[in-house]
Amino acid sequence: MGLFAGHEPVDHAELDNFGVDWVIHYSFEDLGKEGTSTKPMIDNTLAHSHLLGAEISQAISEFVTLIHDLEEAHLQVQVRHGYGPSLLVFIRIPPDLLGNMVYKSRVKDWLHGIIHEFPAGDDHTVVESETAAEALRSVYHAVTWQKHLGGAGITPKIGQWKNIQAAIPLQDRAANAELLRKWSKTVNITAEDLDAIRALFGEKVAFYFAFIHCYSTFLVFPAVWGVFCWFYLGPYSITCALVNCLWCIIFVEYWKTREIDLSLRWNVRDVGILKVNRPEWVWDKEVQNPVTGETTKVFSTQKQFLRQLLLIPFATVAALALGSLIILSFASEVLVSEIYTGPFKGYLEFLPTILFSLSLPWITNTLTEFAKQLTDYENYRTQDQYDVAQTSKTFVMHFITAFLPTLLTAFVYVPFGTKLVPYLDVFRTYGLMSANLAKEIHIDPARLQQEVIYLSATAQLLNFGEEIVLPYVKQTLMHKWRTYRDGRDAARMPRRHSQRTDLLLVDAPEEAAFLARVRDEVEADEYNVHDDTLEMCVQFGYLALFGVAWPLVPLGFLANNWLELRGDFFKLSLECQRPPPIRADSIGPSLQGLEVLAWLGTLSTAAVVYLYRNSMEGVQFSSFLLTLLLAEWAYLGVRFVVQTGMERISSVTLKRAEAKRYGMRKRYLEATSGNVSPRGKPRVRFEDKVSVYTTGTDVSTSKEGLLQPGHDGLHHGRQFWSWAPQEAADAGVRMIKALNTTMDGSRTGPTKVAKGA
Amino acid sequence: MGLFAGHEPVDHAELDNFGVDWVIHYSFEDLGKEGTSTKPMIDNTLAHSHLLGAEISQAISEFVTLIHDLEEAHLQVQVRHGYGPSLLVFIRIPPDLLGNMVYKSRVKDWLHGIIHEFPAGDDHTVVESETAAEALRSVYHAVTWQKHLGGAGITPKIGQWKNIQAAIPLQDRAANAELLRKWSKTVNITAEDLDAIRALFGEKVAFYFAFIHCYSTFLVFPAVWGVFCWFYLGPYSITCALVNCLWCIIFVEYWKTREIDLSLRWNVRDVGILKVNRPEWVWDKEVQNPVTGETTKVFSTQKQFLRQLLLIPFATVAALALGSLIILSFASEVLVSEIYTGPFKGYLEFLPTILFSLSLPWITNTLTEFAKQLTDYENYRTQDQYDVAQTSKTFVMHFITAFLPTLLTAFVYVPFGTKLVPYLDVFRTYGLMSANLAKEIHIDPARLQQEVIYLSATAQLLNFGEEIVLPYVKQTLMHKWRTYRDGRDAARMPRRHSQRTDLLLVDAPEEAAFLARVRDEVEADEYNVHDDTLEMCVQFGYLALFGVAWPLVPLGFLANNWLELRGDFFKLSLECQRPPPIRADSIGPSLQGLEVLAWLGTLSTAAVVYLYRNSMEGVQFSSFLLTLLLAEWAYLGVRFVVQTGMERISSVTLKRAEAKRYGMRKRYLEATSGNVSPRGKPRVRFEDKVSVYTTGTDVSTSKEGLLQPGHDGLHHGRQFWSWAPQEAADAGVRMIKALNTTMDGSRTGPTKVAKGA
Repeated sequence: MGLFAGHEPVDHAELDNFGVDWVIHYSFEDLGKEGTSTKPMIDNTLAHSHLLGAEISQAISEFVTLIHDLEEAHLQVQVRHGYGPSLLVFIRIPPDLLGNMVYKSRVKDWLHGIIHEFPAGDDHTVVESETAAEALRSVYHAVTWQKHLGGAGITPKIGQWKNIQAAIPLQDRAANAELLRKWSKTVNITAEDLDAIRALFGEKVAFYFAFIHCYSTFLVFPAVWGVFCWFYLGPYSITCALVNCLWCIIFVEYWKTREIDLSLRWNVRDVGILKVNRPEWVWDKEVQNPVTGETTKVFSTQKQFLRQLLLIPFATVAALALGSLIILSFASEVLVSEIYTGPFKGYLEFLPTILFSLSLPWITNTLTEFAKQLTDYENYRTQDQYDVAQTSKTFVMHFITAFLPTLLTAFVYVPFGTKLVPYLDVFRTYGLMSANLAKEIHIDPARLQQEVIYLSATAQLLNFGEEIVLPYVKQTLMHKWRTYRDGRDAARMPRRHSQRTDLLLVDAPEEAAFLARVRDEVEADEYNVHDDTLEMCVQFGYLALFGVAWPLVPLGFLANNWLELRGDFFKLSLECQRPPPIRADSIGPSLQGLEVLAWLGTLSTAAVVYLYRNSMEGVQFSSFLLTLLLAEWAYLGVRFVVQTGMERISSVTLKRAEAKRYGMRKRYLEATSGNVSPRGKPRVRFEDKVSVYTTGTDVSTSKEGLLQPGHDGLHHGRQFWSWAPQEAADAGVRMIKALNTTMDGSRTGPTKVAKGA
Repeated sequence: MGLFAGHEPVDHAELDNFGVDWVIHYSFEDLGKEGTSTKPMIDNTLAHSHLLGAEISQAISEFVTLIHDLEEAHLQVQVRHGYGPSLLVFIRIPPDLLGNMVYKSRVKDWLHGIIHEFPAGDDHTVVESETAAEALRSVYHAVTWQKHLGGAGITPKIGQWKNIQAAIPLQDRAANAELLRKWSKTVNITAEDLDAIRALFGEKVAFYFAFIHCYSTFLVFPAVWGVFCWFYLGPYSITCALVNCLWCIIFVEYWKTREIDLSLRWNVRDVGILKVNRPEWVWDKEVQNPVTGETTKVFSTQKQFLRQLLLIPFATVAALALGSLIILSFASEVLVSEIYTGPFKGYLEFLPTILFSLSLPWITNTLTEFAKQLTDYENYRTQDQYDVAQTSKTFVMHFITAFLPTLLTAFVYVPFGTKLVPYLDVFRTYGLMSANLAKEIHIDPARLQQEVIYLSATAQLLNFGEEIVLPYVKQTLMHKWRTYRDGRDAARMPRRHSQRTDLLLVDAPEEAAFLARVRDEVEADEYNVHDDTLEMCVQFGYLALFGVAWPLVPLGFLANNWLELRGDFFKLSLECQRPPPIRADSIGPSLQGLEVLAWLGTLSTAAVVYLYRNSMEGVQFSSFLLTLLLAEWAYLGVRFVVQTGMERISSVTLKRAEAKRYGMRKRYLEATSGNVSPRGKPRVRFEDKVSVYTTGTDVSTSKEGLLQPGHDGLHHGRQFWSWAPQEAADAGVRMIKALNTTMDGSRTGPTKVAKGA
């Protein structure tokens, strides 16, 4: 593409990855904490190590097993030490082997119908990978897949390998820097940029960036429209509400077609089916493929569905737990700010929010842990399905924490506050408060608007700082502290090992920069693409649910997202481990989240407009319900129309993909036709062979000619079919004349007709 | 299968089809009615026919062109005369040609991805057809497809061939009789029976029978449950309502999975894409397939979608027209039955209904005609899409006429009757009535129940009579009348033609029975499968919308459907033309109709239960709306859960199909692997070839090693990778020991740990 050509040369020495494909971070720090190990030693040559204690010998035996397994899988290994008591095992795959693995991976894709062009070749074919991610995916498989699938079976943090802290590819610093530099200068990113992310980090990550890009581009319209509404219509405008809801529906439906588009562009459509089994997965029966005779392990879908139904009580419990916490904090805040008149009011006002913020992580973690156990129990075959299920649960919790406070403000506190607040009087009976609650309470309908403004401006900025700036500062400080500590330790206790060992503990000068970088990378956080997607969904949710209260919301979001996209890429490429290039054909369960939010958004917008338009005056319960009902029906109707329209757009894409596939089959047909003799079925005549039952093996019963069309009566038809073609035509002409005469009857003779014509 | 074995032998002579594959009914009766024709004569050998008038010569020229076109398409033809001024052209395809056409049709299916196993062979391969329908489909294509596609281009009733009244295959009397006899003796029909229908009439018809069978089987549960409710819960029970709604949702979702199941069983999934263009279709641009270079004509989907939006005003107009008619007739009926006290009350009561019934066909026909023009304007490429669009419009109209009267009774007349009826007082001002409307009006809440009982019992029976018995009687009488007329004509005016012509006009004795049958068949009605499907949908609609008013409704429907299934097959096989064996992968737009009815049904059931449970007492508008809103949300929630559950069931089917496809690819791989040399791409080494941009053709820019993973640094890494495997392992072990010492520091010596272990 020449995109990166013409820039200043990059310092290769600093960016060089030394040909390393993958790095395993083996830490034996935790071994001592687990008590004594009874595991017998594997390698007799290491017998002398028992002198250093059972933990050390276990560490050594684990390490040796690791090296052994990697070498068995034909991977080249190299070892350096990491920070603290840990080792870095560097892995390289011989190019021919890698090329062959890429080829075999493509054959597997073809076998499962992911790609449609048959990758011609044999068992030893070597191909070049199309993207870096494709090559890395093969490396990933070589390292992590179970041994019977041809991998080394190294699964970080699980079972036998629980002391392996990370197994990751190394960041491609140069490519990352180029992309980041390019984006900092432009407003929009292109399809080629998305392709570049896909080439570096795989489709799963690329789908997130495609989503935020698509969403931000879509935001331009409501941002402009919002400014217009702000000047001419004001908040709670019906026109503004209608346009916003329509926009939400169109965006969600458009994104679906975009997903299909991208999954075809990236050849990952329906890629979910060929993912390998999770190591933790349990099957309950084996199914044999009737054609190939291969057996597949399966877990009863009914059983799984029943287990999934546990999500309903879980969601209820989570909603109740989080809901009551939120309501409690909300009530305390109201209590303090509106009613309390004692000392320290200025400070106490923040107390509930602070307490809520402090207890929220604990509750969320407990619920997440519980959700994880539920997901484990649901027993998903692939990591993908597992992630989807776990993410769905996280979504439910995040949606509750994100939207419930504002929903309470909008639909409980402001409309019913004057009726509900006096109930807080109960506190006075416990002597907690001396103020008189019977006094007039002012509840400001503008409170909703204030919250929305806060959410769309301040909160987004704070979030950005927390998500991207804070980790960067933390990482830098951590790095400084480590350098200081290592220097101090070295000074306090000079090492006393053999000279050879001492040499091993000191980095070679030409490797020093590289190793320092690798040590940082293996200790960095894992990048979780679901979290970033979730953040965008929550943002979309605010817009859909409460955008009508302050028309400038989309403008704030648009500005935020310009930064967010770049910040997320900064985080992904500089602050996190490089994620393994996993394939995906969508943004996963977030799509359902978006649909639910667009639906909830329509209801919420209708309700907000109805309630707040005339500042709660003339509000009636039955008209409120009627508004909701009409909004609901309008949503269903509009969505149906938009869906139908969008299906046409995606049908064009699908047709193009189908045309491509058709072309491939056509070429194949042309290549084989003529030189392939008909095999299998003999050249048989059609008669007496057609059975009315397709599944029947016993054709003889229909041989009597009962069930065939047409050809059943050849023995009777010999006379019937005896005329030559010209005879038949002639007979027809004669009959036309004759029948015409008969029809006209005796009244109008044939000659009369001729005269009349 | 041996299914039909052991029965008494069938009279072959009477059932024999004389080897005829297809029959064309050419009628020149209408030619004379169109005025003089200026069409020049085509065949000079027919010059003498001008004596019989321009119409006759046109008939002859059309006939000769017909024979010529058929022979050009390599079809054997034979001619006999039909009833009145018409000819029967019999078509037979030579078996080898037919077998080859079937093979080519399979190749086409494979090219478009309908079937997945490559049909091995060459241009001259002859295969046996799997079913009679498959062979007939090839005949159908040979007769109707445009000449450039290899057919004869005979399109009945359209353009050049507008005088061809029918082009149909002949009924397979024996097979039809066997099936009908079998079903009259059993309660349930089997999957093999459905396969038999498919083999005889093609997938489109088979899908209808599969649907009615599936629906009737599902009806067993609500029938039993309804009897229970009838005895223990009574009408308008909440439990009964909940169960009914749940059943409706489950049935609709289950049918979707069943459709997938059947379309895979019958190899017709996504068959819509390879249908040929309709002759009337207009394209606006040509698109080239980038792979094969073939051009495809397309019509802009955007333009079509915009045209489709015209459906909204159409539906509005139709709803208003039908709605006002229904309301008018309803109001008159109420007027007469409740208020009018003058003479002839007993007869006048039926007048509105009779007037309504008489005017309904006219209005429906006008609307249908208008709908047809709209569908024509929407310009669909294939006949399938056209049918879907036209049927959708018919559905809308039928739903209005079917449900609006009962909806009016349930939600307007009974609840608001006492308020609305006095408005009819307006009639008195015109002196039309003398009764006093201010008197107390009794509106019986049981009226809804009476209507529902009528609909589920009487109406179904009447419908059956109208649909199946009446046409049979009509057909028989028609046949008798024709025989009588022909005899009379022959007696009144003895024919005066040449002896040879006279011979042509008299049936040969061995052909007489066959020709009589064919003449009846070509003049029979076309079988419209959409109408039958629609009827079942309307029945489902009654059940979903008003079933709760009388729990025995499903029992009545179940009994009716036992008869209906057999009656429909009787109609299809004895009263109608044999439909061309068209393929389809669903019941078409009826599926959407079912979904809408399940949704409407939930709302309607909730409303009916709320209103009628306590006989309209304590009814409040806000609680009514709340009931609707809750029912709506419950519907959405339950449907989501049911859908998720059903997707699992269909995913099993899809997985099985995928496994089959996988098996085929695997076998292909095994067959080609080893003897196919890698072609296309040369065996290249992996390094320096990976580009970050997948679409790039210029790989050279990334050759500097900026963008590759791992392998970029081979020139730096030579030193890094210099250790032999054993050296690396050894170095690791040394480092573990050394780092452990460093970690434990000076406080806990290594020996201490060993002692503690």
